[in-house]
Amino acid sequence: MDGRIDEHEIESALLAGNPLGDSHRRPLWVYTPPGYDGGSRRYPVVYLLLGFTGRLEAWRNRGPYREPVPETIDGVFAREEAPPMILVFVDAWTAYGGSQYVDSAGTGRYHSYLCEEVVPWVDAHYRTLAAREHRAIAGKSSGGLGAMITPMLRPDLFGAFATHSGDSLSEAQYLPHFFAAVRDLRAYDGDIFRWWDDFRSRVAFTKQEDLRLLEILGVSACFSPGADGTPELPFDPRTGAIREEVWARWLRWDPVRMVPEHADALRSQRAIWIDAGVRDEWFLDLGATAFREALTGIGVDSTVHFELFDGGHVGVEYRQPLALAWLAERLSP
Amino acid sequence: MDGRIDEHEIESALLAGNPLGDSHRRPLWVYTPPGYDGGSRRYPVVYLLLGFTGRLEAWRNRGPYREPVPETIDGVFAREEAPPMILVFVDAWTAYGGSQYVDSAGTGRYHSYLCEEVVPWVDAHYRTLAAREHRAIAGKSSGGLGAMITPMLRPDLFGAFATHSGDSLSEAQYLPHFFAAVRDLRAYDGDIFRWWDDFRSRVAFTKQEDLRLLEILGVSACFSPGADGTPELPFDPRTGAIREEVWARWLRWDPVRMVPEHADALRSQRAIWIDAGVRDEWFLDLGATAFREALTGIGVDSTVHFELFDGGHVGVEYRQPLALAWLAERLSP
Amino acid sequence: MDGRIDEHEIESALLAGNPLGDSHRRPLWVYTPPGYDGGSRRYPVVYLLLGFTGRLEAWRNRGPYREPVPETIDGVFAREEAPPMILVFVDAWTAYGGSQYVDSAGTGRYHSYLCEEVVPWVDAHYRTLAAREHRAIAGKSSGGLGAMITPMLRPDLFGAFATHSGDSLSEAQYLPHFFAAVRDLRAYDGDIFRWWDDFRSRVAFTKQEDLRLLEILGVSACFSPGADGTPELPFDPRTGAIREEVWARWLRWDPVRMVPEHADALRSQRAIWIDAGVRDEWFLDLGATAFREALTGIGVDSTVHFELFDGGHVGVEYRQPLALAWLAERLSP
Amino acid sequence: MDGRIDEHEIESALLAGNPLGDSHRRPLWVYTPPGYDGGSRRYPVVYLLLGFTGRLEAWRNRGPYREPVPETIDGVFAREEAPPMILVFVDAWTAYGGSQYVDSAGTGRYHSYLCEEVVPWVDAHYRTLAAREHRAIAGKSSGGLGAMITPMLRPDLFGAFATHSGDSLSEAQYLPHFFAAVRDLRAYDGDIFRWWDDFRSRVAFTKQEDLRLLEILGVSACFSPGADGTPELPFDPRTGAIREEVWARWLRWDPVRMVPEHADALRSQRAIWIDAGVRDEWFLDLGATAFREALTGIGVDSTVHFELFDGGHVGVEYRQPLALAWLAERLSP
Repeated sequence: MDGRIDEHEIESALLAGNPLGDSHRRPLWVYTPPGYDGGSRRYPVVYLLLGFTGRLEAWRNRGPYREPVPETIDGVFAREEAPPMILVFVDAWTAYGGSQYVDSAGTGRYHSYLCEEVVPWVDAHYRTLAAREHRAIAGKSSGGLGAMITPMLRPDLFGAFATHSGDSLSEAQYLPHFFAAVRDLRAYDGDIFRWWDDFRSRVAFTKQEDLRLLEILGVSACFSPGADGTPELPFDPRTGAIREEVWARWLRWDPVRMVPEHADALRSQRAIWIDAGVRDEWFLDLGATAFREALTGIGVDSTVHFELFDGGHVGVEYRQPLALAWLAERLSP
Repeated sequence: MDGRIDEHEIESALLAGNPLGDSHRRPLWVYTPPGYDGGSRRYPVVYLLLGFTGRLEAWRNRGPYREPVPETIDGVFAREEAPPMILVFVDAWTAYGGSQYVDSAGTGRYHSYLCEEVVPWVDAHYRTLAAREHRAIAGKSSGGLGAMITPMLRPDLFGAFATHSGDSLSEAQYLPHFFAAVRDLRAYDGDIFRWWDDFRSRVAFTKQEDLRLLEILGVSACFSPGADGTPELPFDPRTGAIREEVWARWLRWDPVRMVPEHADALRSQRAIWIDAGVRDEWFLDLGATAFREALTGIGVDSTVHFELFDGGHVGVEYRQPLALAWLAERLSP
Repeated sequence: MDGRIDEHEIESALLAGNPLGDSHRRPLWVYTPPGYDGGSRRYPVVYLLLGFTGRLEAWRNRGPYREPVPETIDGVFAREEAPPMILVFVDAWTAYGGSQYVDSAGTGRYHSYLCEEVVPWVDAHYRTLAAREHRAIAGKSSGGLGAMITPMLRPDLFGAFATHSGDSLSEAQYLPHFFAAVRDLRAYDGDIFRWWDDFRSRVAFTKQEDLRLLEILGVSACFSPGADGTPELPFDPRTGAIREEVWARWLRWDPVRMVPEHADALRSQRAIWIDAGVRDEWFLDLGATAFREALTGIGVDSTVHFELFDGGHVGVEYRQPLALAWLAERLSP
Repeated sequence: MDGRIDEHEIESALLAGNPLGDSHRRPLWVYTPPGYDGGSRRYPVVYLLLGFTGRLEAWRNRGPYREPVPETIDGVFAREEAPPMILVFVDAWTAYGGSQYVDSAGTGRYHSYLCEEVVPWVDAHYRTLAAREHRAIAGKSSGGLGAMITPMLRPDLFGAFATHSGDSLSEAQYLPHFFAAVRDLRAYDGDIFRWWDDFRSRVAFTKQEDLRLLEILGVSACFSPGADGTPELPFDPRTGAIREEVWARWLRWDPVRMVPEHADALRSQRAIWIDAGVRDEWFLDLGATAFREALTGIGVDSTVHFELFDGGHVGVEYRQPLALAWLAERLSP
């Protein structure tokens, strides 16, 4: 790489004593582009969020005939195909595999951690253009959720975002998996915590139901913790009947449904990239379309890049550098 | 067969002038068991309802190594393994493939036709035990829906029922198919009527989406016709977002949700058979379980036979004679 | 129907005492077109063969929005869209579900029965044009196999044929199913006869492996019976390793491989229709293509209609009337 | 990790000028266990081979709730649950994604490179027990192939091996994929090189057919290169008909078929680990069973550990440390 990735660990006051006992010392990686060192120029910044079960190391994973996202975008900057930016790789891992980038009594204050601790830390330690006009957020899957909702909640911090196959239109994304999970849970007497005990006692992901049940349990921890923080499922695990009150808590985090109440925040965004694969296993192509239509409904149009591409949910990380290059043009002074 | 099937055609006043222009002259088949002719004995009756896209001729279809349902139950009666009964094969076909056995401004008054025309006609022409204690209703899939809802609405007529893989728990049954349909409809500009025109112009079921879209259109005609009778979809055909008001009309016909308001009718039933396959492609195993739990919730328990069997939604007609023999024991004087 | 179907039963001397104990009294249906009765005209004849597990009654099965093949072709003749023909519906059912229309020590002499008993009987009882120029044979799946191989073996009898999704290119058709069958057979200690005993003891086709294992057992009975007639599998049921000598016996009945040695017979055909669906679950689209290329290799070209259509192996009976109308033009004087 | 991985690059004389123009400077990683540094003890060695499309970096890829194989086995050694060993991570990547660990005119002399260059280099640079009794080879998928065939060809070098989901029983492994590939190739006029040009012109693995066609092309380069090194497909890409002469060249590398001629080499092995998942997408569970039976056939039995586990072909790397610990017990003095 022509640029460089610094691996930091920051201590989060907000995550100290989080309900799952996850560490409050958090890895944080910062990429600086070619030319950063020894210069004095300030750069736009994009915060990159991972999908469910993602950890920072995943940015380094390497598959055949492809290069990791950081290397691809580094090449884009090195060849001056887009203005250079600083990239920040954010960690929000929990014992259940993720945080959905929200503040939750079930997992911890990951939204606040990102906005109130990570962003200031980066601005303090790097030559950023420390203003919303030059600060964006991007991610895939659950990271796409974070990229949609964080600027809605904190438009003072973020002025652009990119969502790839991002969580949205919750009924399409989740309900088919809930019904399948009911069948999975027959082997566990309908008790997801029996599965969880089993999952932790053996090599992970050796049963076909593991990923589905982990996601349901983990998102429940984020969106619908009980009074004591225990995840509450939004469906009856024996019949699949939707528990409307619990489900309503999930729907509060559906970006499609959040659009109207955050219309000003969204209208203030300078650039919004939305894409998804037409065969997405969580129907996030429908979610992307619904989110885009919701934006149209509040008059957000010319700032949007929308694209459905041929693909599913897996193996589509190559989309991220495309959006980063597009954002770079719009975030640079 | 030792018994006999009489093929009648009856003229329905209630179906005359129905909105789809379907014939109001309706086939009606009546099976009389061995010993009926020349005797004076009166018999219990079971009304048998077909699933979506089913027509009476389907009762005669013959596959390898199996016999049609009427022949199997005829053998049961012939061997005196169960008390003999009269069976009535009801037709409720429409241009869209079915009626869901409800009165609808989109299709016609099929519920009333069944209760007010078919039942009296049978009692008038056959030696039935013409009382609810000896009259049951049974069916598979949409026919199972009819078998559940008709006794709820008319407990004065029906005192027992059997539902096989019957429509229920609407969110599990339908929503995954709605989302898949959105993808199907991309080829038709999101307009299901463009698909319908195409479907009618060629050999049916030569495209993979045909069955799914037909079911959605047809059930919309039954459950959510517009003011002029035109089917209204319960979802946005471009995004999959649920149209809550339309969907609420569908939910009114979800047997699970109907239980509480028809508790007395259900408590008055003498026998209730519920089964479904554990791999049902419409998650009707979840629906069966949810329906049974709803019954438990109103105190209906000892009259219920509940069974999940190894199987899907197709090729499970062999379940029907099992339920008929079971009903025969409970309907006979 | 404007025409008529006569249901006969003929007594076969050749099938008497067949190894499976199947009846030698065989149903035979003959369709005569509109205008046949009371006239003196002679007609071309097409013999129609069923696929594996098919029985004559299947020609009457009726599904939604479609009509049975005999009714469709009857309409074609009634509207004079094609010259009228006599159609003969041949039965070759066995205890294992079919005969593959060959003479076999495992099942019986079904090829000879067809050629030496059925054809003369029809010519004796109906006003046929009793010559190869006016006699064709057609079928789907295993019936397509019969339609390909019978004219190769008896070009003196048959001068045209139509194969729809017909068995061919055996490696593509069968091998993937053999390997899947090895997994199925783990539940039966690798012994297909244990499965067979189980299959006969319960309702047929209630286990997912039933159709696959039945086909493998039944075709083994046809193509690779042991000295005593017992089916021998062409693969090791515990490892899937191909038993080359047994498999070689199957390959002798692969139409693709039979072409060179029957080149003259094929060159003498007046019309050959070949089609298959591009998603055929037995890869018979590859088989159709390979068979056609083999024909090209022996100089047979202008007499061939070849077509791959959008579809799988099931629900494609609507193709048959298309071929019958095409044959009618070529068989009529 | 308590042990250490040294990353070397070695220059291969045997790979210089290889037909695909791949580099002859090869990465080679060597793991030394806890206690190696500063000691004088000599250790057994296991050579670890990657599957098709695998590169050394893949050993570092990290997924959720799991650790990379080197870390797991390091923990085993650190906790003294098995005697310590040296592990060698071998690279045999080519432009087509792999070498199958054979000498080939299509790709290069990867077998010789491993046996004649890598092994001596490791023995020269590390404190190995440099004898077949203490040297093993292991791998998954194509790496399992290498682990089976290398000791057959060079029993003087290797005295034990472990194959996980290793290539074998070629008809089961490959033929179903060939037939599917014919359909894939319809979009490329039946010309796999048109696909290859397309593949190289865009982001890899964005089309569903990519992995299948890459494997077929790459293995053809290894097993059936033409006189000029160009891969020759073992099937007609338009019909799927097997090209028997080309296919025979593939079968020469089927471990099941290689057993008889290498019986002495196999009998001399001290330990053989064979496993596979019962849902392996290449039917390698059948391959494992067939290979084991072939070993039984030559009297190899007590040295074998055989296991079919619940799983498919993907995500089963956790099996490797199990085999390594088992081998450690058998390779240690």
